[in-house]
Amino acid sequence: MTHPLLDLAPLTAAHFASIERRVAALLGTEQDVVVMQGEALLPLEGCIRGGAHPGSTALNVVTGPYGQTFGNWLRDCGADVVDLEVPFHTAVSAEQVARVLAEHPEIDFVSLVHAEAATGNTNPVAEIGEVVRAHGALFMLDAVASVAAEPLLPDAWGVDLCVIGAQKAMGGPAGVSAVSVSERAWERIAANPAAPRGSYLSLLDWKQRWIDGGRKALLHAPAQLEMLALEACLERIGSEGLDAVTARHAAAAAATRAGALALGGGIAPYVHEARHAAPVATTLRAPAGVDARDLVAKALAADPSLPVMAGGGPLASEMIRINHYGVDATRGVVQSSLAALGGALAEHGRPVDLEGARRAAGESWD
Amino acid sequence: MTHPLLDLAPLTAAHFASIERRVAALLGTEQDVVVMQGEALLPLEGCIRGGAHPGSTALNVVTGPYGQTFGNWLRDCGADVVDLEVPFHTAVSAEQVARVLAEHPEIDFVSLVHAEAATGNTNPVAEIGEVVRAHGALFMLDAVASVAAEPLLPDAWGVDLCVIGAQKAMGGPAGVSAVSVSERAWERIAANPAAPRGSYLSLLDWKQRWIDGGRKALLHAPAQLEMLALEACLERIGSEGLDAVTARHAAAAAATRAGALALGGGIAPYVHEARHAAPVATTLRAPAGVDARDLVAKALAADPSLPVMAGGGPLASEMIRINHYGVDATRGVVQSSLAALGGALAEHGRPVDLEGARRAAGESWD
Amino acid sequence: MTHPLLDLAPLTAAHFASIERRVAALLGTEQDVVVMQGEALLPLEGCIRGGAHPGSTALNVVTGPYGQTFGNWLRDCGADVVDLEVPFHTAVSAEQVARVLAEHPEIDFVSLVHAEAATGNTNPVAEIGEVVRAHGALFMLDAVASVAAEPLLPDAWGVDLCVIGAQKAMGGPAGVSAVSVSERAWERIAANPAAPRGSYLSLLDWKQRWIDGGRKALLHAPAQLEMLALEACLERIGSEGLDAVTARHAAAAAATRAGALALGGGIAPYVHEARHAAPVATTLRAPAGVDARDLVAKALAADPSLPVMAGGGPLASEMIRINHYGVDATRGVVQSSLAALGGALAEHGRPVDLEGARRAAGESWD
Amino acid sequence: MTHPLLDLAPLTAAHFASIERRVAALLGTEQDVVVMQGEALLPLEGCIRGGAHPGSTALNVVTGPYGQTFGNWLRDCGADVVDLEVPFHTAVSAEQVARVLAEHPEIDFVSLVHAEAATGNTNPVAEIGEVVRAHGALFMLDAVASVAAEPLLPDAWGVDLCVIGAQKAMGGPAGVSAVSVSERAWERIAANPAAPRGSYLSLLDWKQRWIDGGRKALLHAPAQLEMLALEACLERIGSEGLDAVTARHAAAAAATRAGALALGGGIAPYVHEARHAAPVATTLRAPAGVDARDLVAKALAADPSLPVMAGGGPLASEMIRINHYGVDATRGVVQSSLAALGGALAEHGRPVDLEGARRAAGESWD
Repeated sequence: MTHPLLDLAPLTAAHFASIERRVAALLGTEQDVVVMQGEALLPLEGCIRGGAHPGSTALNVVTGPYGQTFGNWLRDCGADVVDLEVPFHTAVSAEQVARVLAEHPEIDFVSLVHAEAATGNTNPVAEIGEVVRAHGALFMLDAVASVAAEPLLPDAWGVDLCVIGAQKAMGGPAGVSAVSVSERAWERIAANPAAPRGSYLSLLDWKQRWIDGGRKALLHAPAQLEMLALEACLERIGSEGLDAVTARHAAAAAATRAGALALGGGIAPYVHEARHAAPVATTLRAPAGVDARDLVAKALAADPSLPVMAGGGPLASEMIRINHYGVDATRGVVQSSLAALGGALAEHGRPVDLEGARRAAGESWD
Repeated sequence: MTHPLLDLAPLTAAHFASIERRVAALLGTEQDVVVMQGEALLPLEGCIRGGAHPGSTALNVVTGPYGQTFGNWLRDCGADVVDLEVPFHTAVSAEQVARVLAEHPEIDFVSLVHAEAATGNTNPVAEIGEVVRAHGALFMLDAVASVAAEPLLPDAWGVDLCVIGAQKAMGGPAGVSAVSVSERAWERIAANPAAPRGSYLSLLDWKQRWIDGGRKALLHAPAQLEMLALEACLERIGSEGLDAVTARHAAAAAATRAGALALGGGIAPYVHEARHAAPVATTLRAPAGVDARDLVAKALAADPSLPVMAGGGPLASEMIRINHYGVDATRGVVQSSLAALGGALAEHGRPVDLEGARRAAGESWD
Repeated sequence: MTHPLLDLAPLTAAHFASIERRVAALLGTEQDVVVMQGEALLPLEGCIRGGAHPGSTALNVVTGPYGQTFGNWLRDCGADVVDLEVPFHTAVSAEQVARVLAEHPEIDFVSLVHAEAATGNTNPVAEIGEVVRAHGALFMLDAVASVAAEPLLPDAWGVDLCVIGAQKAMGGPAGVSAVSVSERAWERIAANPAAPRGSYLSLLDWKQRWIDGGRKALLHAPAQLEMLALEACLERIGSEGLDAVTARHAAAAAATRAGALALGGGIAPYVHEARHAAPVATTLRAPAGVDARDLVAKALAADPSLPVMAGGGPLASEMIRINHYGVDATRGVVQSSLAALGGALAEHGRPVDLEGARRAAGESWD
Repeated sequence: MTHPLLDLAPLTAAHFASIERRVAALLGTEQDVVVMQGEALLPLEGCIRGGAHPGSTALNVVTGPYGQTFGNWLRDCGADVVDLEVPFHTAVSAEQVARVLAEHPEIDFVSLVHAEAATGNTNPVAEIGEVVRAHGALFMLDAVASVAAEPLLPDAWGVDLCVIGAQKAMGGPAGVSAVSVSERAWERIAANPAAPRGSYLSLLDWKQRWIDGGRKALLHAPAQLEMLALEACLERIGSEGLDAVTARHAAAAAATRAGALALGGGIAPYVHEARHAAPVATTLRAPAGVDARDLVAKALAADPSLPVMAGGGPLASEMIRINHYGVDATRGVVQSSLAALGGALAEHGRPVDLEGARRAAGESWD
């Protein structure tokens, strides 16, 4: 009763370490990388509980739903939290961040999401990083939705804690994730008496027992299959070329936006400026008087496998979201998604130019 | 350096035999089933070389390209061959078969393809089987493109050699295949001095060394991963239910035909009568003056992953083929294929009703 | 660039729920089961942080290294902790537990490890459970090393929180794990203001958002491959039969003990009484004057793949451990381990009866 | 219902061609390589049916059971066959081959097995190749049991048809196999009117439709999973290094032989000279009066997973065979096999030196 997912030889520490190195190479980082054995929420929570504590003040940039989660964790750690919220149709700017930092010189931790799949925005991390570094705060970035979809340079941008998962643009598994940790982040966490220690949430455990121990013994049995899948997707990204992968995502975003604009029927890009649009998902505003959930249901009735969904939470009635990441960052998925959305608009009696949308998306892709 | 496809425990004879039994259950057959370690061409060639010989006369029903391959093998075996060719836009009828059999009482072997993916036809095997049985000839059926896509009852229909592969409607692997063999087929092959023996092509080897030996030792190391994949797809068909799987294929065929009729633009179903249309692929005639290959290229430019292709050989310029089998027998793939084809027609300046096609296909599916 | 570990269709909530049900069936429990997306340390930590809090008093039974980890977590939660430590060469008894409970009526939480792979003991959970139930405390059991190796009946035994992993006797993956949660455990955790909420460690999140939400939406993308491997190993246990799997482990333990006794050379079972011996690992005391690490190194020089290791921490110099779980719970692995150990003893000049050991192990197995 | 072995994206022609190139690199050949979609018996049969015909004369070197199979095929093709049989305890020599070639100037085809797993011999192909080349005959080599276990240089040795499978020393799949084909082999086959054409057995089909067609379209759907496994094992061999893999096999053979000699108890190497011993399997002669099958049954009773077996056919009662290839070419498997065999001899009352065998094997390995 043999099965391809059972009875594999255990993943050795050396093999695990080699996967870790490949993640570091993907991020172009010289910093330590910790590959955590859980979804990316695990290192994100570990970073915040490691970096925040009573007496610290955090700037939490809220450009989507994860910002709220981060705020909850920060407050739970006893930190003072300054929330910088921007409307969901736009990215945050470095100027906005700089202003808050100037108003709150006590801020010593900044949390930011790079690309927001939920709103379709992407934030200018390079510029924000410069501002944060000048201020001196520790800088945590959630790059789950940006890695492999757009340039991501944690070292150049001064990111102290850069968290990634493989399940979006990387086309890989969700069950393991990774975080790069700068020297000063390690110092900060080590100095935090409330930082998780001896815990599944702990980054320090990995530092002290795995990294400082010479990467000889893992902390516990790893999620082996997810690790092998992570390795396989890194191999595949290497074959396609990281630049080609990000270019494919950029093309998908541009083609979806162009196609949606040509489609008509009363929809409009949710993100006002194209330069703010995330390469992993395009968000669209439903026509006045039409519930986005209805449109999505009609589009999915035609093809339930399409990466089309209504917005989350309060945006559910007004926002349509087209995902185009990983294996969905293709010309075909973009075209099919636009066609299904156009069909749904037509069913609502909205005049649409299906052929124009197809042509605009195709020309944009080329 | 562990890998999910390496170092599996060897497939035991008992496990192999259990997969064989599941294939028999899928076919509802009481006859022996031989699982051959190669693509379905292997058992097809094995059947013909086992059944045909100098002095025998074969009726070879040619309703698509494989009929020509069968004819070549039959002649290579020294058999006299009566080819019954029907135009590719229609199925053969039991009356046509009966007429040839009546004219050639010496016919002792009949070869037929059930569903023809290449032309989009499916032949009425139940009725033909009755005629062949009355005549007394050995009846070989190529059911690769029909198994799991439409009813297939080799025992009830008097099929002596029923060959299947898993790569179409079954959604499984192509590297192993199977054939059910009736008692009288075994007798015929055993009595044929020219039947392959001690050969990769030999059915008799499997009979004598595997089946008659109590299924204790395989003839050689099997294609283990393909066998496990075959088992997995049989398991999955069991979960969905064979009737549900065939119903899904019927729905896909009907929806594609309905959508294509509503699309307009000068295309027309290649198969004249809907009852002759194969559930695995729908073939369409390109509009006069438009090369089918151009249309397909344009459709695939929009989405290279769509199961849309030009016809083979002489049909290349005039036939468009939409496959809808296995994981492609879904509402979504049908809709996307129709949309892409409609877009391609529009690019050629043909007036198409994209929304009407979408609606017709959707309603047909429901 | 396709790969068997990439691009699988996402695991649906219904599929996830069906795996959850299979875990519940394995445990024969009517209680809720939460399948956590991490190694078993994750639910163990979640259980303790969910159940313990300032003001609660915990009885922490320490029969191996995990007891110390549990004690750390309990203290970190602010609970008063009564440690009941027993020598590592024996199991704890229900009487010992009863005595401590009688002395500390305030105890409201009991943590226990079922089988201790590190010491080779297994604790009498049925009897202890009766005592704990009579006392009224919440009862958490770490059954990672006992599940599928020996009877495990959380409901009958009054276990409120029964944590399992698949990586030992189940022969499955380590990257996901599970815990059964009784109604009163849910109440206790819900009433604990310090219980993790909105956290990767949280059991309550799974209760409120997954279970109470009708198992419609997962909390985050699951470790899909580990889940599929968990399903595959449950399927395989079902095929072999759970009773047969536990019988195989019992046979491996008895044969190893019998073989070691017959081998001579100065080694002796570490666990004094055979009825206390764990079915997953047999621990042996090295001969006086011989370092266990030397013996193990010599044994592994002969075969580095053998499941033979030195004891952990302070036991390293004196304890040899032979694991025999999962695919290693076979006659062959037991025999090879004994032979390698015998060879190592012979290299140290100890007189050994290799053939007697082989015979004794073989007869015990039969 | 997703499964790692189902629904993979189809293997493209380019990917298939890249695997073909990696096989060529493994063989260090400049010749065409055909990757056949079946076990190695398929290309072996294809080579003989392609190269032999009425009027040709073949020298068939019989050093094991496959030689008889080759003789059957050669005769079935109508060729005159000169069988050169050597006793199974020795390799054939180049001198013996030269003598037969001198006696039969009409010989135009030579078939030879490189390493014989069944007898434990390996034949001196380099020297034989020189003799065959001087004679001018076409030279077919069955290298299934030698590839990756010992040097294999088809181009340098003048091998015209070099057939390999991945299931032995390569540690890969059995369901696909490969053959390198020299220019003059292609010419010979093309000139043979009886060579398989339009057949699953045909090499020419691959030449004309795949290679000469620019490797654009496969002849039929491939055994995709077996192809991916072949690629994975080539990748793994590349990581370990081909020289390291062959060295590991040489060490396993030497250690097994040394251990068996030290074990005593009346067994003796079947292959008289160590330089003739195959690196994939060591064959031993059972003591007088002891049936090899009894010894093997006793050894396997201790560990059914050991690669120990009785000889085939007429050798069953006298020959014990220890396989040590692929993942079994390890120190541990060798030691465990020797220990089990020693135990079995002891059960028969034969005096054995288990510890001496263990030491001799270990020292030989080092």
